[in-house]
Amino acid sequence: MSVTAPKGFRAAGVAAGLKSSGAPDVALVVNDGPDATAAGVFTANRVKAAPVLWSQQVLRAGIVRAVVLNSGGANACTGPLGFQDTHATAEHAAATLSAANPRLLVGAGDVAVCSTGLIGERLPMEKLLPGVRSAVRGLSRDGGPAAAEAIMTTDTRPKTTVVAGAGWSVGGMAKGAGMLAPALATMLCVLTTDAVAGSEALDAALREACRLTFDRVDSDGCMSTNDTVLLLASGASGIEPTQQELTAAVTAAAHDLAQQLVADAEGATKQIAVEVVGAASEADAVEAGRSVARNNLVKTALFGNDPNWGRILAAVGTTAAAFEPDAIDVAVNGVWVCRGGAAAEDRAKVDLSGRDVAIRVNLHAGDAAATIWTNDLSHAYVHENSAYST
Amino acid sequence: MSVTAPKGFRAAGVAAGLKSSGAPDVALVVNDGPDATAAGVFTANRVKAAPVLWSQQVLRAGIVRAVVLNSGGANACTGPLGFQDTHATAEHAAATLSAANPRLLVGAGDVAVCSTGLIGERLPMEKLLPGVRSAVRGLSRDGGPAAAEAIMTTDTRPKTTVVAGAGWSVGGMAKGAGMLAPALATMLCVLTTDAVAGSEALDAALREACRLTFDRVDSDGCMSTNDTVLLLASGASGIEPTQQELTAAVTAAAHDLAQQLVADAEGATKQIAVEVVGAASEADAVEAGRSVARNNLVKTALFGNDPNWGRILAAVGTTAAAFEPDAIDVAVNGVWVCRGGAAAEDRAKVDLSGRDVAIRVNLHAGDAAATIWTNDLSHAYVHENSAYST
Repeated sequence: MSVTAPKGFRAAGVAAGLKSSGAPDVALVVNDGPDATAAGVFTANRVKAAPVLWSQQVLRAGIVRAVVLNSGGANACTGPLGFQDTHATAEHAAATLSAANPRLLVGAGDVAVCSTGLIGERLPMEKLLPGVRSAVRGLSRDGGPAAAEAIMTTDTRPKTTVVAGAGWSVGGMAKGAGMLAPALATMLCVLTTDAVAGSEALDAALREACRLTFDRVDSDGCMSTNDTVLLLASGASGIEPTQQELTAAVTAAAHDLAQQLVADAEGATKQIAVEVVGAASEADAVEAGRSVARNNLVKTALFGNDPNWGRILAAVGTTAAAFEPDAIDVAVNGVWVCRGGAAAEDRAKVDLSGRDVAIRVNLHAGDAAATIWTNDLSHAYVHENSAYST
Repeated sequence: MSVTAPKGFRAAGVAAGLKSSGAPDVALVVNDGPDATAAGVFTANRVKAAPVLWSQQVLRAGIVRAVVLNSGGANACTGPLGFQDTHATAEHAAATLSAANPRLLVGAGDVAVCSTGLIGERLPMEKLLPGVRSAVRGLSRDGGPAAAEAIMTTDTRPKTTVVAGAGWSVGGMAKGAGMLAPALATMLCVLTTDAVAGSEALDAALREACRLTFDRVDSDGCMSTNDTVLLLASGASGIEPTQQELTAAVTAAAHDLAQQLVADAEGATKQIAVEVVGAASEADAVEAGRSVARNNLVKTALFGNDPNWGRILAAVGTTAAAFEPDAIDVAVNGVWVCRGGAAAEDRAKVDLSGRDVAIRVNLHAGDAAATIWTNDLSHAYVHENSAYST
C-alpha cells in the first residue's frame, strides 16, 4: 500500500511524457490531515538540485501538505531558471489542490518537490504542469503503488513498505538504483504516518533512521545532487506514540526500503553486507566498512566469485580507524579466510555462488560494530552507466 | 636504458618460476658506487607488505647498495613468516653479491626488497632464492630493460625512462597497472642517478617528484599495500647538481613513468587528465580533481563517450574545496559544456572519439591549479579484476 497505507494520505502516479518511454513519471502525495507536520533529510552534496534547495526551505517550517515528485529529469545544475521551474511546480500544485478542495488551503510553501533523472537539463514544464493537474485528479486512498511506480528511473521494480504500530502505521516508497552513496543513498523517499507527532519528533525519528539505514548504503560511492527523504504525519490515527516507538517504526520502514534499493542496484549480481565488528567506535566501524564497500577491486573480485580477502585488508588499511594490521580477522560467507592479518582457512571453502555475500571484519580494537550494504561492480553496471544519458 | 642509463649501476631480470607463465619475475639493481646514498617513499596504506616494512628500515640509514624486486607475489598480509621471507631474500642477495665481488661488502641492511602480485600468499622461497643467485650472475651495465620487464604484472609493456642532466642523468623503471591510487599509485619504481647527492638531497627531490606525479595518478581509487619508489645515487659522474636541478630531473623522470602507468592501466580505453583551475589553494584543486577522477559514474560515462558534465559537478560537490555551486565552469575536450553551474555549449560538440580526454574544471575561487590523471571504467577493467587471483 506504500505511502497511502497510513490514514490521511492520498496519492497518484501518472504519465506526463517526461520519460520518452511513456512510463509514469509524475507522482503526488497529499496529506489530508488533520495534522501536516513533517521532517526532511537531504543530500550532503554541495551541488544541490533546485528541488532540494526548494524543499529545504519548505521543511524549515515543519509543515508539508503535498509532495510532487517527478522522474525523467533531475532539475540539477540548471541555474536560476531551474529553481523557477521548481517554484512554479509547487505553485501549480498548490493552486490545483486548493481549487479541487477549498478546505485544504494549500500554499506553495507547503509543497515539497523532488526530481530525479539526468542532471543538467531543464524540465519540460509544458509537460510537467499538465502532469501535476492530472495527478491531482487521480488522487486516491489507494494511489500509493502508482506513486511508487512513477518515481522509478533505472529501478527495475517499485520499492514500498508498511510498518504497523499499535493503531497507527508508517508507509513508504523509495526509488534509487545508481549514485547510491553515503550521506543518503541517491534516492528519493517519502515516508508517511498517521501517528500524532510534532515536526521535532519526526525530525529526530527520521535522522536516526537515515543514520542507520540509507546513510549506510553505499552502492557505488557516488553521492547525488537530489537525495531527499521526507516524513509526513497526518495524525489521523489520533494516537501519539512515544519517541522510541516512532523512531523504531520509521527506522524499520527505512531499513526495508534501503534493502530494496541494494537489492535492485544497477547491474548488480551480488548484495553485499560488510559488517565491521570489534571496532573502537561506531564511527570507526562505519569508516572501515565504507572503505571496503567502495573499493572497486573488492567489488570486481566478488563479481568474479573470488574471496580476495587481501583486497579487503588493503581497503581497511586506507582508513584512520583504530586497528593493528596484524590483528585483523576477515570472514567471507562464514569462512575465516584471514586471521591476524594473514591467510587462515582455505579460500576455496568460501561459497560465493549465491547472490548474498556477508563480509565480516573484526578489528579487535573494541566493542563497536556497524554494517554497510553495497553491491558488486559488474559488466552490467559499466554498461548501464556508460549508456545512461545518450 | 632504464635504471642502468646512469653510470655506476648494473641490473638484471630473470625468470625464477614465480609466475606460472614462465615470464621473467625477479629483478636486481645494484649500485656499484662510489656512493650508495638513497631515498624512498612508501605506500600510506596502514596494511603494509613485508617488503615495505623491511625497505622502510633499510632506507632509514639513507644507504642502499642493491634492490631485489619480484613479481608473481606481493608478500602482503603474510604475517611474521612473510617478513622472515623478505629478510632472507635480502640476506641471500647480500651474501651472493659479496661472494661475487668481495669489494662490494654488501650487508642485508643495504638491500631493499620490493614485491608485487597477489596479496595474502607466501612467496615460494625455493624458487625466489635461486632466482636471486641467477640475477646476480646476470648483472650487467645494460640490464636495465630486462629488470623493467621482470617487474611487470598485468602491465602490457615495461615502463622505463631516462632524463639527461649536464654530465649526469636519471634513469628509471616502474610497474603498475591496477590499484593505482593516491599516496602512491600502486606501483614499484626504482630511479637511479649518477649525480653526487646526499640522502637528504635525494629525499627532498623524491618527495617533491612523487607529490607532483605519482601521488596525482588515481586510476581506480584503490591504494596498494606494496607501493615503493626508490631513488639511488652512485655519484659516478662526479658532478653534484643543485637541489633544484636534481629535483627537476627526478620529477621529469617520475612524470614520464607516471604517464606510462596511466597509459597502460588495466582495461582502460581512455587516458583522462582532470585539471582543476581557479582553486583557492593547490590542496583544494587536488581534492576536487581527485573526487572527479575517482567517480565511477564519471568514469563509466567517459567509457561510453558521454560528456556527462552533471556527474562531474556532482563529484566536485562532495568535496570541501572552496567554490560556489553556481559559479563552476566545466570543459570537456575544450568545449565549455557547463558555465555558472548550468548547461552552456552543446554537449554534442564534444569529440570523445580519441583516447585522450581533457576535463577542465574552473572553480572561480582563486588562482591555484592541479591536474589528476586517471582512466575510464571499462568492461575490460571489470573483467581483468574479477579474474585476477583465480
